[in-house]
Amino acid sequence: MEESGAPTSKKGAKKAEAKAKKEALKAQRAAELAAAAAASGKAEDDPAKDSYGNRKTTAGAFSQDAQEVEIRALDETYIGKKVIVRAWLQRARVQSAKMGFVELRKGGNWNIQGVIMASGPGEEPVVSRPMVKWVTGINLESFIAVEAVVKQPLEPVKSCRVSGLELHLTKCFVLAPAPTMLGMTIGTASQPIVNFSDESSASADAGKEKDAEAAASVVESLTISAAPAASMLTHLDNIAMHKRAPVQQAIADIRIQVKRLFRSYLEERDFKEFEPPALIGAASEGGANVFRLKYFNEEAFLAQSPQFYKQFEIAGGRERVFSISPVFRAENSNTPRHMTEFTGLDLEMELKEDSHEVLSVLEGVLLHIFRGLQERCANEIETVRSVYNSEPLLLPEPGKEVRLTFAEAQELLRKEGPPEFANVRDDEDMSTPQEKALGEVVRQKYKTDFYVIDKFPETARPFYAKLDDSGATVGDGVRVTNAWDMFVRGQEVLSGGQRVNDPAELEERIRAKGVDPESGGIKEYLAVFKQVGVPPHGGGGFGLDRIVAWFLALPSVHLAAYYPRTPKRLLP
Amino acid sequence: MEESGAPTSKKGAKKAEAKAKKEALKAQRAAELAAAAAASGKAEDDPAKDSYGNRKTTAGAFSQDAQEVEIRALDETYIGKKVIVRAWLQRARVQSAKMGFVELRKGGNWNIQGVIMASGPGEEPVVSRPMVKWVTGINLESFIAVEAVVKQPLEPVKSCRVSGLELHLTKCFVLAPAPTMLGMTIGTASQPIVNFSDESSASADAGKEKDAEAAASVVESLTISAAPAASMLTHLDNIAMHKRAPVQQAIADIRIQVKRLFRSYLEERDFKEFEPPALIGAASEGGANVFRLKYFNEEAFLAQSPQFYKQFEIAGGRERVFSISPVFRAENSNTPRHMTEFTGLDLEMELKEDSHEVLSVLEGVLLHIFRGLQERCANEIETVRSVYNSEPLLLPEPGKEVRLTFAEAQELLRKEGPPEFANVRDDEDMSTPQEKALGEVVRQKYKTDFYVIDKFPETARPFYAKLDDSGATVGDGVRVTNAWDMFVRGQEVLSGGQRVNDPAELEERIRAKGVDPESGGIKEYLAVFKQVGVPPHGGGGFGLDRIVAWFLALPSVHLAAYYPRTPKRLLP
Repeated sequence: MEESGAPTSKKGAKKAEAKAKKEALKAQRAAELAAAAAASGKAEDDPAKDSYGNRKTTAGAFSQDAQEVEIRALDETYIGKKVIVRAWLQRARVQSAKMGFVELRKGGNWNIQGVIMASGPGEEPVVSRPMVKWVTGINLESFIAVEAVVKQPLEPVKSCRVSGLELHLTKCFVLAPAPTMLGMTIGTASQPIVNFSDESSASADAGKEKDAEAAASVVESLTISAAPAASMLTHLDNIAMHKRAPVQQAIADIRIQVKRLFRSYLEERDFKEFEPPALIGAASEGGANVFRLKYFNEEAFLAQSPQFYKQFEIAGGRERVFSISPVFRAENSNTPRHMTEFTGLDLEMELKEDSHEVLSVLEGVLLHIFRGLQERCANEIETVRSVYNSEPLLLPEPGKEVRLTFAEAQELLRKEGPPEFANVRDDEDMSTPQEKALGEVVRQKYKTDFYVIDKFPETARPFYAKLDDSGATVGDGVRVTNAWDMFVRGQEVLSGGQRVNDPAELEERIRAKGVDPESGGIKEYLAVFKQVGVPPHGGGGFGLDRIVAWFLALPSVHLAAYYPRTPKRLLP
Repeated sequence: MEESGAPTSKKGAKKAEAKAKKEALKAQRAAELAAAAAASGKAEDDPAKDSYGNRKTTAGAFSQDAQEVEIRALDETYIGKKVIVRAWLQRARVQSAKMGFVELRKGGNWNIQGVIMASGPGEEPVVSRPMVKWVTGINLESFIAVEAVVKQPLEPVKSCRVSGLELHLTKCFVLAPAPTMLGMTIGTASQPIVNFSDESSASADAGKEKDAEAAASVVESLTISAAPAASMLTHLDNIAMHKRAPVQQAIADIRIQVKRLFRSYLEERDFKEFEPPALIGAASEGGANVFRLKYFNEEAFLAQSPQFYKQFEIAGGRERVFSISPVFRAENSNTPRHMTEFTGLDLEMELKEDSHEVLSVLEGVLLHIFRGLQERCANEIETVRSVYNSEPLLLPEPGKEVRLTFAEAQELLRKEGPPEFANVRDDEDMSTPQEKALGEVVRQKYKTDFYVIDKFPETARPFYAKLDDSGATVGDGVRVTNAWDMFVRGQEVLSGGQRVNDPAELEERIRAKGVDPESGGIKEYLAVFKQVGVPPHGGGGFGLDRIVAWFLALPSVHLAAYYPRTPKRLLP
């Protein structure tokens, strides 16, 4: 991605690694010093000795009048108040023997500065010099709980989101100590990822890289933005640190909102959620790219989509349904676009008269999601862009949504696209480069990154796609279907269409696609149509991971997943 | 289930079958007659010939001034209006050559009576006698669309939910014809299921049973409540009819509400949803009962719970998380309590001082669900009870929730339970019969079907259960844990507890349970605790299917699932 601020070139990556390695030795020494400081026992005569240290629980540790509060909830009304804050310690700095600064982070990217200052003679509560030393020596990324008085800093703390307040620490306990050497620092975790390859050759390098980063972490703990970047493999090997980075917290929060917006839009329109099974008895949709497993004395398969089950729900009188479920593809594709397991968001509904009833719902729900994200997640989007820069997604004005037929789209590409696409055909599916080029043309012409391509030729659709009743054809007499794709930034994000509901027509389409109507899964599917009658219906579905990734123009869909599964990666 | 109105005895089931078979022949003749009527072509001179028949779509079929409406939305304001209604035809009756009655159903159990009457001379719109004959001959469970005038019946139609209105049909089209012979009628689908066995021997019988039912359907189409009952296998072989039955629609709607109530309660308390993976790299939780599959050149496993991933989210700074995900058990248990795939509802959260913070959330969310169902789903619960009778779930008054320690519960069982449990031990896990007996005792003593048993002995919990810090023991010096189960009607529905978060303690617990800390999955799990530090936390989880089933006291959890998976059943 050109827009990204990441050093994505191999050269850049190697340079970053080299830099990190060089600093490893220096860092090793610094780490040893820090470890020594952290390990220093408390003297028996330390008057503040009960106010700091490692604890398993904070039960009984804090003042009765101190109020538990989240960093994100702090505002001016807390000034002068005694509070308890639990957070990750993300920076620490010794100013003098009497004073130090720490930075506490919680809830994504909410952070605040903490001040630890030795108290004067007779002053209460007592903060001792050993306590100052101990607190500023806590290993970074430890989980701590502090008691503090909220004050206004002399000037706004630029490095913190809560810049108008600071915490003057009077007690500080470590509840979950991080080790002296982290596998990956928060600084590195917050850098753009330099390499998304999941090849095992890269895996061999990961160890060294990791060490280098860890070492660099101690040295560079005060300059997060200057931390070296790491590969995706290093991130996944350090899953907790990967997740703690504000950029990943923001992506996860955006992902949550996509699901919420999807659900709320559909529930308002009387759609009912259901759970399709993951385990199925036959590789019903094709058979290629399907995971097989031993199921007691038989064989089972992992669902490649909830397609058949959505249709069974319609046959079963559920009228309008949606599902959010894992789907599986045993495809040996090692690209930033592919995963072997992802979250499918799907819907299906009865149609009254026209396939566009469901097209409108699908277009509506995607626009609702995109607009909803722009409204609700401004802060999270900004956080992501600060690491992975991108242009905001251009959306059509309401009422000016772009819907092209497949033939219109191909004509546009022939006439206004790059010369290599001057001869694309109306009866053959689009390639990924064609799709990308079309995205550019549409953006220039219609000022939108989101659009629909309708009436795909039947050669490009599965057997359950309903042929257009008008008998319309393209190219060499290929029938068109009531089926469409939806695109974001030139990448397909959603497939949908009207389904064949007449059993005779369905059987004919199955045969026409060279599938045996008596084969496993297909037979049972067809049986439902014959046994009871299924009303006209249509639907569509999209991948949650891709929607998040393409909306944010992330360099890899793996960044949008919680635990990406690739042909080479099942951990963590 | 004693409370159930179903003829669950084998004798009862055989009797029902016999009855059905006897009527098969009679039915066959009736079916032939009906088929003949339905097939009768329309005469060219029928003045109403454009007002009825089979159609693929209703585009252009209806009057411009007719208004599309759902049965559930009909009320007095529609009287005298011209409407379009799409629905399943569930009954038809010929009154005379000039008049007939049909019953339309949609949206669960919303049904209304339709009247078809030949028009008098000069009357508009024209309804002909052939049209009356054709409409009343439509195969039951066909999907139809009608144009009608809404009128008030002479007296309320007792058999219909919309009893104060009827539809006077002027047009009627079949959009999806059902066959003359259904595999299972709506009447049979609405009866309590007589046999939940998924043994293949039962499967052999299903065919005959099915025929008998189908035959009986035609004869008994006017007396749904008297239809013969069928086995679960027959229901699953006729999945669409199974789903169309109002009882299954009601169960599905209740299931949806459980998810909604779970989510809304947690989201209000700042929990964030995430998706744990189904494909995992190691059989981390035990290794027994895990599905294995070939994953490119390696082996993969299907997740038995999201436990480790919930904890990774906490380690990753997500604070409070929940998930709704499929979980898999390769357990060869052919009982009404077991499935190989089910939907897990799970949560995990940081703890401030005490494990009861999460116990309260779990207890709170379950009570919120149960009370929410009683409030929101009164109609659906009534529909289910009309088929599977049960006592309403007794819930504690707010503030009077019952929480017993494991030792207290065992003492109660020894003192007030049946004599066979007079010697149960405080350091051994409860058996299912013990749990059931305790449920009875608690119901008598505390007037509640819902309660918590806390402080389980460590012998009964997995390695990640946190030992009670007080060092308390039961029985022969067995330590107790900060872990609990929650019960409904004497059946465990939820397990939860505080987790070990200190890496040294965790490694010790893993060893104490005889697990190798270096084994696959465990090593990577433990690594997270060592690599970064994890704050104190706890959580719990329950099965969606079981919550629905036990709330409604259904005879099998399979009734609560959309597509139950058992060791013998992967279809549909």
